[in-house]
Amino acid sequence: MEQGASGSKSRDSLKAVFRPASIAVVGASANPEKWGFKILKNILDAGFQGPVYPINPKAGEILGLRSYRSVNEIEAQVDLAVVIIPAPAVPEAIEECGQKGIKGAIVITGGFSEAGPEGAELERRLAEIAARWGLRVVGPNCQGVNHPHHSLCASWPLIQDKGEMAIISQSGTIGAAFMDWASLDRLGFSAFVSLGNRADIDEADLIEYFSADGDTRVIALYLEGVKDGARFLEAARGCPKPIVVLKPGRTEQGRRAAESHTRSLAGRDEIYEAVFRQRRIHRASNLEELYDFSKALAYLPCPRGKKILIVTSSGGSGVLATDVAALEGLEVASLPGELAGRLRAELPSHFVISNPFDLTGDADARLYRKVVEAASPYYDAIVLIFGDPLPGASEVVTQEPPQVVIYLGGADVERRERELFHLKKIPVFPTPERGIRALSQLVKY
Amino acid sequence: MEQGASGSKSRDSLKAVFRPASIAVVGASANPEKWGFKILKNILDAGFQGPVYPINPKAGEILGLRSYRSVNEIEAQVDLAVVIIPAPAVPEAIEECGQKGIKGAIVITGGFSEAGPEGAELERRLAEIAARWGLRVVGPNCQGVNHPHHSLCASWPLIQDKGEMAIISQSGTIGAAFMDWASLDRLGFSAFVSLGNRADIDEADLIEYFSADGDTRVIALYLEGVKDGARFLEAARGCPKPIVVLKPGRTEQGRRAAESHTRSLAGRDEIYEAVFRQRRIHRASNLEELYDFSKALAYLPCPRGKKILIVTSSGGSGVLATDVAALEGLEVASLPGELAGRLRAELPSHFVISNPFDLTGDADARLYRKVVEAASPYYDAIVLIFGDPLPGASEVVTQEPPQVVIYLGGADVERRERELFHLKKIPVFPTPERGIRALSQLVKY
Repeated sequence: MEQGASGSKSRDSLKAVFRPASIAVVGASANPEKWGFKILKNILDAGFQGPVYPINPKAGEILGLRSYRSVNEIEAQVDLAVVIIPAPAVPEAIEECGQKGIKGAIVITGGFSEAGPEGAELERRLAEIAARWGLRVVGPNCQGVNHPHHSLCASWPLIQDKGEMAIISQSGTIGAAFMDWASLDRLGFSAFVSLGNRADIDEADLIEYFSADGDTRVIALYLEGVKDGARFLEAARGCPKPIVVLKPGRTEQGRRAAESHTRSLAGRDEIYEAVFRQRRIHRASNLEELYDFSKALAYLPCPRGKKILIVTSSGGSGVLATDVAALEGLEVASLPGELAGRLRAELPSHFVISNPFDLTGDADARLYRKVVEAASPYYDAIVLIFGDPLPGASEVVTQEPPQVVIYLGGADVERRERELFHLKKIPVFPTPERGIRALSQLVKY
Repeated sequence: MEQGASGSKSRDSLKAVFRPASIAVVGASANPEKWGFKILKNILDAGFQGPVYPINPKAGEILGLRSYRSVNEIEAQVDLAVVIIPAPAVPEAIEECGQKGIKGAIVITGGFSEAGPEGAELERRLAEIAARWGLRVVGPNCQGVNHPHHSLCASWPLIQDKGEMAIISQSGTIGAAFMDWASLDRLGFSAFVSLGNRADIDEADLIEYFSADGDTRVIALYLEGVKDGARFLEAARGCPKPIVVLKPGRTEQGRRAAESHTRSLAGRDEIYEAVFRQRRIHRASNLEELYDFSKALAYLPCPRGKKILIVTSSGGSGVLATDVAALEGLEVASLPGELAGRLRAELPSHFVISNPFDLTGDADARLYRKVVEAASPYYDAIVLIFGDPLPGASEVVTQEPPQVVIYLGGADVERRERELFHLKKIPVFPTPERGIRALSQLVKY
């Protein structure tokens, strides 16, 4: 099959970027203020397993490594070049990389098409040279690549927590925020790719690559506009994993700002909306949803239907959850008589046997478990809201049916339990609204 | 004026609850599993400055304090009773408190009107006895009162950070989550009152009280329904401070859940919406907005108009902010020619002089300050988005015009700077969308 073959070829060619055996840092610097220093340091501090070659015209030693005047001076094979030199010098550097047999480059430097016609011409030359050598390029004008499963952090900030969410972004900051949250949550991420100007590698290539990446369960995208509509559609169709997109440009002003930021053709929002729906792509409406939806889709199984039971120690949180669930088309269905009878017999008499099921201030982990076990056969998903400092909460959750955990109002106990949940790869959401909105994505398609 | 006099009388009568000189804990327990232990311990650990009297039929000593069989055994004057005994015993305990001259009570215990007709009768008697003695009651069936400015934590969790946001809630958990966030942010709160069943003290009393409380700048409310519409309207009209309300019940199912949770007459949402608008009450649409809006209204001055400049190191964040600003009716206005000319002369040539103003990866605190100083005379508010690990950010903000700070993607540097901002009482928002939505509240009325 032509398509499959091209996808697999494209994937193979990206291995030099994501799984290099050796790296040259073109523009490495001994000055701690420079990006050429900071990125080299991050590569070393992340514990990259192969040789790293600083390239600097003054040679000498940088961060304890012998530095080279040019990639041609290196005798061994080099897979990846991380490029941090002024834009006008980049095409020639890529030419040298090509001659050296380097197959991947991450060009951090700005000053290309985003900076005007001269920069656009530089970028065109860069792409042409790279294509001639079969060298694949991330960027230019980007925040690099962070791939903790390969101990590769050619980016910033230095965050290394291994996980299963890939974040691909036209904004470095949005990728960095996503990684930071995933790190704080102890869930981690599988990769961060800052797209930059997309002179070569674009979101379609990366969807194809991470479709086949064993460490990735979900692909999160921040896109201001797709580079090539047809290829994007093809890549999305071929992707067996959930894709979540945050795309601004719902307003005319936002659209103009996007076009000025990344020269993306932001296009009419209705068209994007229709395409996302048709391709079963999840659309986040803000940055926190990009993260929440990714968490849910990476770590929770999909419920068979929309019938949910809300179990809570916090009546108010149950009300907030019910409101959002109804708005999202979930069914907060009454307890079947059989189940209600059984629970009435087993539980203290002052509990109100209803949905939301309010365990009140008397709640403890044991009571949650009792309700979950009894109710599991009757519902498609169970929403567990822990609304107090409830120790042992992380012991309550079972495998079937899918269970969405929301934890709030528990201060230090909450933070400990959240960490325990996340170490078990059970995602925890910080408010009823965010948890329910994330759940609604699981039943959307 | 009748109204003022009644408001001031009502306020005075609440002093026994919020600023007691001494406390009896009715139902204090030596068993660390019991609420009667945990709450007594929180009162002591919070460092309450006056005498604390545990009341327990077995007397003895609890947590190192002499315990009494009844409040009548105490010789000294007592201001406040915190009541944690089973519901059927509460009316008599309140009668004894009245006889003893106690003027305030916080009834934590549940089992009153929320539990059925017998409980409702108990609650009616409790209210009647309290009224006869002129004793003001918070609760029953509540999570108590936390008032760090008076070192009073008759509640849980134990959080003591002094601040200027009062949170009044029909849900203990929602109040606890609010306090916890305010504490993590180092902004703190002025008081938390868990309303419970509102047998006596309700949201109108508390709006009146905190209207005149010198430590409070904003009143945040979680309400499932108001207890007395006319009194609520009167209190809101008389309140010179911003009020933010989170009220669920936008859907029929949410409304029913609210009525079941707190027996509130949730009523038609359109009516609430109209009342909130008429009384210039800010309505949050979720729990995080309740917090964000309160932060903005407590700590930021109101801009004169809707003309904003967005200054960012993150183009993507600028785009997201622009989109939401346009949706919220803010004006992301182009730079006046004079200002653009001045900045073009002073700044590196590759900066795009536009709105959002993108300082790119070259941004540092000094550049932010330069743009803010130059642009201040031309805009009603400036939105500063720090989208990288930017040290010194907290030095950039000036007094005029109002400046909204958003910080993301900065990992550890971001957390240090956020703390520095908050210690200066400059609120920081975690995403472009949340910052802009909060700003929009400042220009709403």
